[in-house]
Amino acid sequence: MKKALAFDIGGTKIYSAIVDEEGKIITDIEKFATPKTIDGIKQVLKKQISKFENEVDIIAVATAGDVNNTNNAVIGATGNLVKGYYTINFQELSNKRVFLENDANAAAWAEYRIGASKDTDISIMLTFGTGVGGGIIINNKLFKGKSGAAGGMHFKMFSDKRRKCTCGSWDCYEAYTSGTGLKRSAEESLNDPNVTTYDVIDGVKNNNNKMLEIFNMWQEYIAIGITGLVKLFDPDCIVLSGSMAQFIDIKKIEEEVNSDNITTPVSIRLAKTGNYAGMIGVSLLALEDIHNG
Amino acid sequence: MKKALAFDIGGTKIYSAIVDEEGKIITDIEKFATPKTIDGIKQVLKKQISKFENEVDIIAVATAGDVNNTNNAVIGATGNLVKGYYTINFQELSNKRVFLENDANAAAWAEYRIGASKDTDISIMLTFGTGVGGGIIINNKLFKGKSGAAGGMHFKMFSDKRRKCTCGSWDCYEAYTSGTGLKRSAEESLNDPNVTTYDVIDGVKNNNNKMLEIFNMWQEYIAIGITGLVKLFDPDCIVLSGSMAQFIDIKKIEEEVNSDNITTPVSIRLAKTGNYAGMIGVSLLALEDIHNG
Repeated sequence: MKKALAFDIGGTKIYSAIVDEEGKIITDIEKFATPKTIDGIKQVLKKQISKFENEVDIIAVATAGDVNNTNNAVIGATGNLVKGYYTINFQELSNKRVFLENDANAAAWAEYRIGASKDTDISIMLTFGTGVGGGIIINNKLFKGKSGAAGGMHFKMFSDKRRKCTCGSWDCYEAYTSGTGLKRSAEESLNDPNVTTYDVIDGVKNNNNKMLEIFNMWQEYIAIGITGLVKLFDPDCIVLSGSMAQFIDIKKIEEEVNSDNITTPVSIRLAKTGNYAGMIGVSLLALEDIHNG
Repeated sequence: MKKALAFDIGGTKIYSAIVDEEGKIITDIEKFATPKTIDGIKQVLKKQISKFENEVDIIAVATAGDVNNTNNAVIGATGNLVKGYYTINFQELSNKRVFLENDANAAAWAEYRIGASKDTDISIMLTFGTGVGGGIIINNKLFKGKSGAAGGMHFKMFSDKRRKCTCGSWDCYEAYTSGTGLKRSAEESLNDPNVTTYDVIDGVKNNNNKMLEIFNMWQEYIAIGITGLVKLFDPDCIVLSGSMAQFIDIKKIEEEVNSDNITTPVSIRLAKTGNYAGMIGVSLLALEDIHNG
């Protein structure tokens, strides 16, 4: 069975492991703090590659940022990584082929191949964490758009410039539905800059009315965005993932979306492939790419 | 050369003509007021079909409402047509095959085959008239979604229930960017229920400041929605059509969208195939469907 040396490069951590064609992680997972320099990031990758390169068929890298359609370069800026990150020539780091994909796209593929959207043709995965990521599967293919940037969840929730998004624009879906978005809603509602996402989640557990109200509004924002996506894509299912997904009342979101004048109902599901979905998905994509020539 | 007897069934008018494989309308276009009963609509279609059926290879019907993926039935309700319209069995009306497609999807296909988006792989057509329609082309195919309902432009512009949409939901793109949406913004802004879309357009021509402000806000709403679509789909181009499109400052929208943190620029274009895009597009789809078996 073919194998990939997988990486998942995020703003705070880099994960690495070997993944097989069935999406199984077959080694220990190594973790590194993401270095603050381009050279530092290269060093982490090089060290792992020199150690494992001979045991695998391809190097598979899930990364923050959009990845081009030939899967060999990051395009455009990545807010949470060092400036100029996109200038890294990943192929230089190995004698084996290096295959890149955006982390949310990779995770969506993992869900499609071995997870929650396995049995569907059209699905959208939304990942709710510090930010919000998206990956779109259309007719059994990852939908990348003309340059690789498709799946950006930065459509607007308001049209009157209320809340700045980390992307530089205003009122994006991410700015209201990420963990950070929940914190910001709490800050605004309580007029307390120190309130955290965890305070809200704790408050909900303890039936604190104010925290419940803030949390319910957050879920309402999540549903409003999904409703728009469902009318645009008419998908089989929407998969919710990321560190915040466990707190979402998925049945409630599904009911709300399907009650909003939808032509045929959509299924909303919790992701199944876990924290390493990025490594699993990019490995499956990379190994399938070998097969497809 | 193969030919289709084409219809375009809308809320107020039914058009009919014969269209060839190159998208040329080769007969006079006949117009009928859309009957208020199912039987009345059937009579109009039957009359034309009995007259022209022997001269053509297929019957091609562009219609309001979502059309299923086998192109033989309307699914779900159509606000502007008689109740129960979707129960019509169109195939019964002819001995030739009857091929249906949603009117906005058909028009998007006409633009893709012989119009403004001819040279592109991924495009979205938006049609601004009494309502707002949408058609999505992905990798040279009409994107229909799981049941045929894809392309609905009913994502939300606000998340706090301000303006009811004709679809029954709140604050949809259509409710702000259609001709009716422009009228409603004018009503609200001027506190005058009798102001019309034409009053606003006339005011803009005469440099009336208040009307300019209302009109510019309408354009701003159009741009805000397109920006969200571009981040989701990363398309080659967006085509603007419909009776209101002529008033839109397309260069301005293009600049605004491309200045909003877009990974690679999108081209925004005025539609080229005119008022009969629905008949042209559905004929091209129907005739290609014969070729593809």
